[in-house]
Amino acid sequence: VPFYLDTVKIGALSKEVFPELKKYNKTFKRKLRPFSINSQRVTFSDYIDTFDKRSQVINDLLCYWRDNNTFNCLKGWRNEVFPVFDGNHEIAFRIERSGIALFGFRAYGCHINGYIEDPDTHEIKMWIAQRSLTKQTFPGKLDNIVAGGIAFPYNPTETAIKECLEEASMPNEISNQVVPCGAVTYISVERRGISADSQYVFDLKLPTSYQPKPNDNEVKGFYLMDFKEIIERLKNNEFKMNSGIVIIDFMIRHGILTHTMEENYLEILSNIHRPIPFPGP
Amino acid sequence: VPFYLDTVKIGALSKEVFPELKKYNKTFKRKLRPFSINSQRVTFSDYIDTFDKRSQVINDLLCYWRDNNTFNCLKGWRNEVFPVFDGNHEIAFRIERSGIALFGFRAYGCHINGYIEDPDTHEIKMWIAQRSLTKQTFPGKLDNIVAGGIAFPYNPTETAIKECLEEASMPNEISNQVVPCGAVTYISVERRGISADSQYVFDLKLPTSYQPKPNDNEVKGFYLMDFKEIIERLKNNEFKMNSGIVIIDFMIRHGILTHTMEENYLEILSNIHRPIPFPGP
Repeated sequence: VPFYLDTVKIGALSKEVFPELKKYNKTFKRKLRPFSINSQRVTFSDYIDTFDKRSQVINDLLCYWRDNNTFNCLKGWRNEVFPVFDGNHEIAFRIERSGIALFGFRAYGCHINGYIEDPDTHEIKMWIAQRSLTKQTFPGKLDNIVAGGIAFPYNPTETAIKECLEEASMPNEISNQVVPCGAVTYISVERRGISADSQYVFDLKLPTSYQPKPNDNEVKGFYLMDFKEIIERLKNNEFKMNSGIVIIDFMIRHGILTHTMEENYLEILSNIHRPIPFPGP
Repeated sequence: VPFYLDTVKIGALSKEVFPELKKYNKTFKRKLRPFSINSQRVTFSDYIDTFDKRSQVINDLLCYWRDNNTFNCLKGWRNEVFPVFDGNHEIAFRIERSGIALFGFRAYGCHINGYIEDPDTHEIKMWIAQRSLTKQTFPGKLDNIVAGGIAFPYNPTETAIKECLEEASMPNEISNQVVPCGAVTYISVERRGISADSQYVFDLKLPTSYQPKPNDNEVKGFYLMDFKEIIERLKNNEFKMNSGIVIIDFMIRHGILTHTMEENYLEILSNIHRPIPFPGP
């Protein structure tokens, strides 16, 4: 069921989430219900008409669901807020990150391909992180050297540099070298809801002597892998899904995965740059 | 109006082309009509059921239109055939290149970004071709250093290397260095019909001393431009449309055009990797 803001679709509720929202809305007296709901659409009630009111209504709802253990994804409450945009590309309200997929709102992240190039052979190897086994989402999965959600009010490059320090103890004089190389966009239906994600992609060529090390407890360790190993582990489903997509994009951009190796080359390129049908920044 | 092969859509006719096809089909006796046409769909008649028969029927039609000056685009008859694929990714028939857009069939090309990098400043400049003023299509427009259609039976890389010699007199020991870096895909409605194009993209880092020179009479000249100039000329609409798209893709991949410079960054990335709704190779 689509979520509207005025006349603009900005998200979509899965069939697990929609009945729970109806149920919650009915706990209010008719005049005080925060949402206006029918089988075709969900939107805010008329009187919920400002940034602050919308943000408050969404936050109250997510807190209620979290405290009632309605949705597992809210166990990973992050105290990190993401902006949601209206049809004029203005921020309409903000929402706790762990609840975004429940509404199918757009989310934004950045992923950094940290790689080294052998100066003689020009062979490229990539630093791969393994996520901590205790991380709320995708524990133990393989990941880019650094990745993070783009929280209000940071831009993609600022986020990338900040996360380099937080996740890989990387000094600014190295992380300043990140090169924005595009973005991957995709929509996936998951247990926690609908992910309509845009991941900004950065390449970072690291000194061959550089060794990333975990800083917070989000990362179990870092491993330098050649692309033979990376491709094998991708096929083995050892990577977090969106990190795998970012690495496939890297391999295509750098001529490591070519049209002669992959018969679905053109389809992959379209699928990892899928248009998101909701307004963005 | 969609063009079907069995149950699979493989193209689409614009409202200029559809009535001309109906008219042509009626010049045949009922039992001998090559096409089966109603207002919802166009397909081959049942008895046109092999590679050779389909190719012949299409060729006869295009020759008839060419000889009757029905469509301007056929004045550029190239004697170059492109494959058209069925739903099993097999070649169903072939078609003269200048007539493809009349049916909206998919077409494939390759574009090469020939660039140099200043060894000290790392500034990148790109070699830009100006198309000959007598070329049938887009005369005088700016273009990539080399570009060409992928004709049966060459693959994208083979075509790229072949065109480097034909269009820019580039020796094989240089053109062998082309790196496949993805593809751009787009659909555009033009005077000549519907272009559903996939352009394979190659980067080629050239020696700073290298000077391309025209070989055939398709190119007026080659110019080395910095990206300040390229962006100005892009905005000025001096580039052939698809070559401009390829250069925008290059600028995004190399961090020359970034998310902070362009508010439609994510939309551009989706639009230049548009899924093509017809089967491919």
